[in-house]
Amino acid sequence: MLLTASKVFGRHKPVIGVNTDPERSLGHLCIPLRYTYCFSDALKKLRQGEFRWQWRHRIRVHLAGMGFNPRPVDLHEQQLSLEQHCSAHRSTTPAAVDGDKAGPELLPVRALNEVLCGESLSSRTCPNPHAPSPTFSLPRPSYYEISINDGPWEKHKNSGLNVCTGTGSKAWSYNINKLASQEVEDLLLIAQRGSRAAQPLEPAFVEQVTQHYNESLIFSPEEPRIFFSIREPIVNRVFTSSLHRGFTTKLAVRSRCWDACMVVDGGTSFEFNDGAVATLTVDEDDALCTVLLEE
Amino acid sequence: MLLTASKVFGRHKPVIGVNTDPERSLGHLCIPLRYTYCFSDALKKLRQGEFRWQWRHRIRVHLAGMGFNPRPVDLHEQQLSLEQHCSAHRSTTPAAVDGDKAGPELLPVRALNEVLCGESLSSRTCPNPHAPSPTFSLPRPSYYEISINDGPWEKHKNSGLNVCTGTGSKAWSYNINKLASQEVEDLLLIAQRGSRAAQPLEPAFVEQVTQHYNESLIFSPEEPRIFFSIREPIVNRVFTSSLHRGFTTKLAVRSRCWDACMVVDGGTSFEFNDGAVATLTVDEDDALCTVLLEE
Repeated sequence: MLLTASKVFGRHKPVIGVNTDPERSLGHLCIPLRYTYCFSDALKKLRQGEFRWQWRHRIRVHLAGMGFNPRPVDLHEQQLSLEQHCSAHRSTTPAAVDGDKAGPELLPVRALNEVLCGESLSSRTCPNPHAPSPTFSLPRPSYYEISINDGPWEKHKNSGLNVCTGTGSKAWSYNINKLASQEVEDLLLIAQRGSRAAQPLEPAFVEQVTQHYNESLIFSPEEPRIFFSIREPIVNRVFTSSLHRGFTTKLAVRSRCWDACMVVDGGTSFEFNDGAVATLTVDEDDALCTVLLEE
Repeated sequence: MLLTASKVFGRHKPVIGVNTDPERSLGHLCIPLRYTYCFSDALKKLRQGEFRWQWRHRIRVHLAGMGFNPRPVDLHEQQLSLEQHCSAHRSTTPAAVDGDKAGPELLPVRALNEVLCGESLSSRTCPNPHAPSPTFSLPRPSYYEISINDGPWEKHKNSGLNVCTGTGSKAWSYNINKLASQEVEDLLLIAQRGSRAAQPLEPAFVEQVTQHYNESLIFSPEEPRIFFSIREPIVNRVFTSSLHRGFTTKLAVRSRCWDACMVVDGGTSFEFNDGAVATLTVDEDDALCTVLLEE
């Protein structure tokens, strides 16, 4: 569904998904599950107009300061393979001088779920060239500066930045931000300490608070705004991170990474190295046209 | 410090660290910061016995079901490089039959901070062989079964599993599990809804609760137990994750991953693929001897 959506620009071509693998996929972007088993019902309703249109907002990305045209890497069609020597991947073009920097360029992608910014991972090899050599990747923190709605730039160090739409708020963003009842219970117990009105915590109450909290992370695909969240922020003397997440209509990210990338909907990626600035916004013209059938 | 500790087995050889880069490193494992500027003071105290010994517990790992001797990859000494074709890394030995499986083997490592289990990441290449080609890694969920203290096996799907010592509870584990005051405030507001005794939330109160919660994630290096936490658990019809984290003295993990690894202290990694079982415990004999100087 994401792959198909990635080929459709503009708001006029409807994209309708059917969940063909209900055992393994929740199919958030598809028509309700029951139509997988009686698709003719869905066709009937569509023909008879028993549905409504739903425009799912998407994120557009302007990229500046790369010094050259950003070349998208299509991750869907590449085979799984690894390359020699990480340093060959770093840009060999001389660092762009301020005056030389290419102006912001609108990238040929529209994020239906999210834009993920992260550091490419270092991989190491086994010393024995004859044996099949495992390579393992270690997470490295990512360094960014972030400006919300043209606000002041803030330094951040973390495991990555996720910027999602309402559609994407049920995807990776949800997994990053949701809390488990165990954590909620621990927290509520701490909050209660020393309180005269403290009562024992009912499990049902803890479950309810947890559920409501997690539900608050989800918003409508039709809302023209984006939600950003920072994975595993590292806070110390240098990197104070006052705002870890929030809603906005415009977000600018300046990369301070050696070897980072921006991945759109898990499908297309762009190099996003030191000095490059990505500006993320929502434009009505980019909304993806889908349908809402009743359950 | 971690590299040095990785060369020291047993509890009899003291390892003392000095923070040589206080601008960039907090030096949790080193003697207090002030001694970086007057190291002779530290030497004086050590000579005069003005210190106490501190034994930091470490995790030992037994690995079974690999079908061959597990070959450690030393990540410290490898250059940054990437290899061709991910599938070459998958084991070419035939899948071990139950009767054939090698018995649990004690690995030649002791984790001072933590053991991280995760899926190796897929990397994709740019289609143009002539241009410097960026490779980007996408996170893929990891599949495991986990048994706590010889309890029943539970299926888990997540971004990875972190098992740490008291020493490691200030490291990666802390970043994974800590909460920001923003999240705490959102949660407390939800918990208050509909409560007759609801009072406006003081920022100082929220900060205090946040601080206490985060402090509760840290435990003493001298406690002979391990803390496991699951990063970004994915919970759905198949993968119910009732216990996301906790303390224990014994943890067994069965890999259900294609291409996973276990990384000890960010320094040594082991292949950890489908069917392999790692058992993590703490043994007094493995404790690392360090010193405690007063501030």
